[in-house]
Amino acid sequence: MCRFLAYCGEPVFLETLVCTPCHSLIEQSMHAEEAKTETNGDGFGVGWYSERTEPGRYCEIRPAWSDENLQSICNHIRSHLFFAHVRAATGTAVSRANCHPFKVGRYLFMHNGQVGDWPRLRRKVEAMIPDELYGARTGTTDSEAIFLAAIGAGLERDSVGAFQRVLHAVRDEMTAQGITSPLRFTATWTDGERVWAVRWASDDKPPSLYWRQGGNGLIVVSEPVDAQRDQWRRVPAGGGLVARIGAAPETFLFQ
Amino acid sequence: MCRFLAYCGEPVFLETLVCTPCHSLIEQSMHAEEAKTETNGDGFGVGWYSERTEPGRYCEIRPAWSDENLQSICNHIRSHLFFAHVRAATGTAVSRANCHPFKVGRYLFMHNGQVGDWPRLRRKVEAMIPDELYGARTGTTDSEAIFLAAIGAGLERDSVGAFQRVLHAVRDEMTAQGITSPLRFTATWTDGERVWAVRWASDDKPPSLYWRQGGNGLIVVSEPVDAQRDQWRRVPAGGGLVARIGAAPETFLFQ
Amino acid sequence: MCRFLAYCGEPVFLETLVCTPCHSLIEQSMHAEEAKTETNGDGFGVGWYSERTEPGRYCEIRPAWSDENLQSICNHIRSHLFFAHVRAATGTAVSRANCHPFKVGRYLFMHNGQVGDWPRLRRKVEAMIPDELYGARTGTTDSEAIFLAAIGAGLERDSVGAFQRVLHAVRDEMTAQGITSPLRFTATWTDGERVWAVRWASDDKPPSLYWRQGGNGLIVVSEPVDAQRDQWRRVPAGGGLVARIGAAPETFLFQ
Amino acid sequence: MCRFLAYCGEPVFLETLVCTPCHSLIEQSMHAEEAKTETNGDGFGVGWYSERTEPGRYCEIRPAWSDENLQSICNHIRSHLFFAHVRAATGTAVSRANCHPFKVGRYLFMHNGQVGDWPRLRRKVEAMIPDELYGARTGTTDSEAIFLAAIGAGLERDSVGAFQRVLHAVRDEMTAQGITSPLRFTATWTDGERVWAVRWASDDKPPSLYWRQGGNGLIVVSEPVDAQRDQWRRVPAGGGLVARIGAAPETFLFQ
Repeated sequence: MCRFLAYCGEPVFLETLVCTPCHSLIEQSMHAEEAKTETNGDGFGVGWYSERTEPGRYCEIRPAWSDENLQSICNHIRSHLFFAHVRAATGTAVSRANCHPFKVGRYLFMHNGQVGDWPRLRRKVEAMIPDELYGARTGTTDSEAIFLAAIGAGLERDSVGAFQRVLHAVRDEMTAQGITSPLRFTATWTDGERVWAVRWASDDKPPSLYWRQGGNGLIVVSEPVDAQRDQWRRVPAGGGLVARIGAAPETFLFQ
Repeated sequence: MCRFLAYCGEPVFLETLVCTPCHSLIEQSMHAEEAKTETNGDGFGVGWYSERTEPGRYCEIRPAWSDENLQSICNHIRSHLFFAHVRAATGTAVSRANCHPFKVGRYLFMHNGQVGDWPRLRRKVEAMIPDELYGARTGTTDSEAIFLAAIGAGLERDSVGAFQRVLHAVRDEMTAQGITSPLRFTATWTDGERVWAVRWASDDKPPSLYWRQGGNGLIVVSEPVDAQRDQWRRVPAGGGLVARIGAAPETFLFQ
Repeated sequence: MCRFLAYCGEPVFLETLVCTPCHSLIEQSMHAEEAKTETNGDGFGVGWYSERTEPGRYCEIRPAWSDENLQSICNHIRSHLFFAHVRAATGTAVSRANCHPFKVGRYLFMHNGQVGDWPRLRRKVEAMIPDELYGARTGTTDSEAIFLAAIGAGLERDSVGAFQRVLHAVRDEMTAQGITSPLRFTATWTDGERVWAVRWASDDKPPSLYWRQGGNGLIVVSEPVDAQRDQWRRVPAGGGLVARIGAAPETFLFQ
Repeated sequence: MCRFLAYCGEPVFLETLVCTPCHSLIEQSMHAEEAKTETNGDGFGVGWYSERTEPGRYCEIRPAWSDENLQSICNHIRSHLFFAHVRAATGTAVSRANCHPFKVGRYLFMHNGQVGDWPRLRRKVEAMIPDELYGARTGTTDSEAIFLAAIGAGLERDSVGAFQRVLHAVRDEMTAQGITSPLRFTATWTDGERVWAVRWASDDKPPSLYWRQGGNGLIVVSEPVDAQRDQWRRVPAGGGLVARIGAAPETFLFQ
């Protein structure tokens, strides 16, 4: 599937988490350990907040492990809140438009998982995207469609509920169509101030999700980026957490 | 907008028309003379028929003028029927999925023109694409959407009528929404045996279209590729032609 | 040839000069007015200084005018000293390794011009690169080779003299080989504190170079980025200037 | 390192060997079994002979596994002699100029292996390239440099001897510089009529090499592309073979 990382806290250079650790996200692009696929070489993306309300974004279709631009950007951009993602495509094309994190206004969103039998469901899910957001639909992934649908479902005022409503609608549609392959949704999103992360699936195999609260900030990852395994807490299936800079993260149920 | 070229006749190397002439399509990627934009550097594509029913295709997002792969492919592939296109994007992203010629099964399609106020119309036009073809919708252009809609409207049995029905529906929708910017459609398509080309617009400015019947075959172009201007015949606005290898092309009205 | 822009002064977002002005560098990538070629679509690069001694760098082979990453990076990075370049290749490949600005340690370098009959001279100029820098030779351009040779010729302690020595050696070699096509060198470089810019050619046609000192800082450009032509001062052939943040630029002869 | 495949015999579509088999070269780009690295995702290339003396070539920097162009080209090009390569970079950049197969005139060359401590040796090996070929040096790999040096050392009249002379010279230089990391050279090359393949290293670990003579032709591979392991013959360390269409391949010592 994919691997991702989100950070909020004291401003740090992106490289601190994306490039430097022994099992950094760039390392995971070639050698992920807890993902369905070891290789996550179908493009990547980073998004970061700086002085502006809307985040910056750099994404590319080549593997993260060989991109000199990514190294340089991570080496020179310091941010209090950033997202990074390496992709393993599951049926849709390798293109910038299909790279995470997706951005709409001040929001960023990353997903690790998949909608079973996506080609049959795509139209239905795209129909959940409101007209005024349809121009932001530039790719063909399930991830982007769910994100846009969630904005339409009230992401701004009820972030967790919006994704739940969309996922339930998708699951109901899958049931109606007799689709038995699973709907898996381990994801993280932000409005530039708070970071949410959830781990959920219609079966018992939601992709892995961990977090760690250090002296400097909160790190949310698909899998630990360092060897200190005991420092990381696993998000349980059907669970989530929300964090704000300077406050302790709170956990919640996500079902 | 864009520039394109279609050929059918005795098998020739693609380079004969795409690379070598003084005003070849590659030359037109940097210096088009009759297009709205001189530069057509937003990606390109070639499609060709060989021994198989379905055509081969090579497209890329860089400008045609600097791509060594394109030179080599044109230098080594000989075909009796091929399409080539250089793109000037009009609002949608530079991506492979937005490069012409578009391919579905044994069909190829290229377009030069635009649907006025496309962001407002996109959803309506995409709704004309039948379910079984929706998976082939990989980009965001008006061109691809019209092509897929035309297949749904009966391209296989009534090729010209199918495009007319789609264009009229689009024009009606534009009228209904009060969109006054024009709908322009200079295009060419093929089923691997016949080549159609039409020149039409809702205003009086359909993009240019020429053809030339030589000893070896028929060439259809956005603008002449050589300096022998008097050898080329201009397709009138509201006109079209259809050709089959070994037979004289026939003209028709397209309105 | 190429077009470039350098800035030093109060920290500003890169977009202020690279994207926003009516004749911004991105605009010049498609419509340069004072260059040999109107289109500068053979890749681009930006380099910027932030908190670190060495600059960050982002370069890509596609045209600047369609790259969303470039827009986002310029929109979110604020710097007191940055370089930007759009390339028109003159015989060498379109590749990241051939994109300006070139970077070695804390130095950046951009060039607009060419070494006449470069294929015949390449080996000789590469031979001027010291062993310890040869690993930094990743492309095939005359520009990169001259830059690396200049570092070898003492760029660190005598920046202007180093380039002069290299250019004179190249010119002498051209004379020895009977090469009559010109050597043209309009260039700018920086060590992260000072910015140098020179305009020189072996004939009377060095590429254009302008500068402007505003309230916020110094801008050096191939051609003015705005319509206030009278605010820009033309660097004469055989001239140069050097600037440091907070001090008035000084001009000098470069011959 | 890398994985490659060469074929000569009855004309077949490239896909027959590059895409379709259960352990095809495209499969090996993500899951090689006998290579130092499982992932060979740092670009790829194919070269093929058709009606012309010089071969066609298509290479790209993205991984082979996700490139639709590669699929289409392999699906539509039929050839009596072709080369294909997927790359795992060992220190040099991911760029088209560093993709195999390298082409000079009617020759193609592919390499799997490496020159130990290449940065220290690069200049010496490049110095072995004759002046008239130096313009063909567009990348920075050891592979390309050795190929060009071998042409200079008489590839045209004594193909095997030319590579031996170059390798011995490189090894001697390594000894002189006290470089103890190995020189490994498993490679294949062709003049469009004959195909040579050799397996050699300065230590006892030359990369794997196999061949199979079927009813239709000869296949040379880094590792078998199908599950019929007993049908493939392993080239011993210090061995080579040469083949011509329609004749049985001959083996030889390569030391």
